[in-house]
Amino acid sequence: MGKVVSALSMSLDGFVADEHGGVGELFGWYQNGDVEIPSADPRWTFHVTEASARFLRPAVSGAVGALICGRRLFERTDGWKGRHPAGCPIFVVSHTLPAGWPRDDLPVSFYPDAIAALDAAQTVAGERVVAVSTPTLTRQYLDAGLLDEITVSLIPVLLGEGISFFGGLTIAPIRLDGPEVIDGSGVTHLTYRVIR
Amino acid sequence: MGKVVSALSMSLDGFVADEHGGVGELFGWYQNGDVEIPSADPRWTFHVTEASARFLRPAVSGAVGALICGRRLFERTDGWKGRHPAGCPIFVVSHTLPAGWPRDDLPVSFYPDAIAALDAAQTVAGERVVAVSTPTLTRQYLDAGLLDEITVSLIPVLLGEGISFFGGLTIAPIRLDGPEVIDGSGVTHLTYRVIR
Repeated sequence: MGKVVSALSMSLDGFVADEHGGVGELFGWYQNGDVEIPSADPRWTFHVTEASARFLRPAVSGAVGALICGRRLFERTDGWKGRHPAGCPIFVVSHTLPAGWPRDDLPVSFYPDAIAALDAAQTVAGERVVAVSTPTLTRQYLDAGLLDEITVSLIPVLLGEGISFFGGLTIAPIRLDGPEVIDGSGVTHLTYRVIR
Repeated sequence: MGKVVSALSMSLDGFVADEHGGVGELFGWYQNGDVEIPSADPRWTFHVTEASARFLRPAVSGAVGALICGRRLFERTDGWKGRHPAGCPIFVVSHTLPAGWPRDDLPVSFYPDAIAALDAAQTVAGERVVAVSTPTLTRQYLDAGLLDEITVSLIPVLLGEGISFFGGLTIAPIRLDGPEVIDGSGVTHLTYRVIR
């Protein structure tokens, strides 16, 4: 089975978006360098530093076999129009189906339960990574002992408020191994393994 | 004038101590290596990795000219018995004087106001660093535009709750330059400059 990895950009004070879900202060590193990285979605091409390229390239080159997100992120991104930059199917945890979904022509499926979504995502991903891209789900999988890695792209900014990456953990402390550090420009990529 | 630097060990989820003020989960890196670093207080000798030694040695070898803390930390450490490991005078921000203080024989002074404490500390420190070791004061100096650097010794643990380093900022976002990264063992030392 592939690893279950939560990977998000986070401010130094722990937020993955501002209080409205905006990520403008956090996503600058995707476009602050000379290395062009095409994604699986032709509308998105990244331009990153050499260091960040080492971090980003695998994620958009087939290493990710499935992506899990919550309903809020699905709505905000309009479901990535069914084509996530990682080029993988999308598994949305949501109690209700959004209007017009699911669609036969797009690899987006919906699950009322986070664990059922992970089961389905792992079946599809096989040996590839299952990426978790929502903080609430990250915390649920951490609490359930189902998360293998946490990758924080740490951004040199204090947002003061917003959507917290790790707020509301119910089982703590959680000790981590690592990190592996990739020292980018305007971002520090830190990969931790969860110790069970 | 020397730099005003806030330097604390912080969990990946943003806490500098547990809810009781305990730092057991965060201070392991002070004793996880073979490099012996004596401090200005003979009761405290650190044993750190080569990487952490590069980070720690200046701080306990005269680079810090004054240390500012709040009343809670002063009480918890019993005022470091008047001898901080950095070997510098201690400036405590407190509305009231603790019983038995100040003492003529120990370099600990008390100020009801955070800005007055910083003025006094900078006068004593001269060109040397003024270290701020309390989160609430860090936030006050950030809000007042008086903080030059933030050094986070980032620890691979999620505490879930505790005393927040950056919670309660009133002026945000605050953008930072850097970080300089020293990749230790069980700790990642990150030094940021505050952009005014």
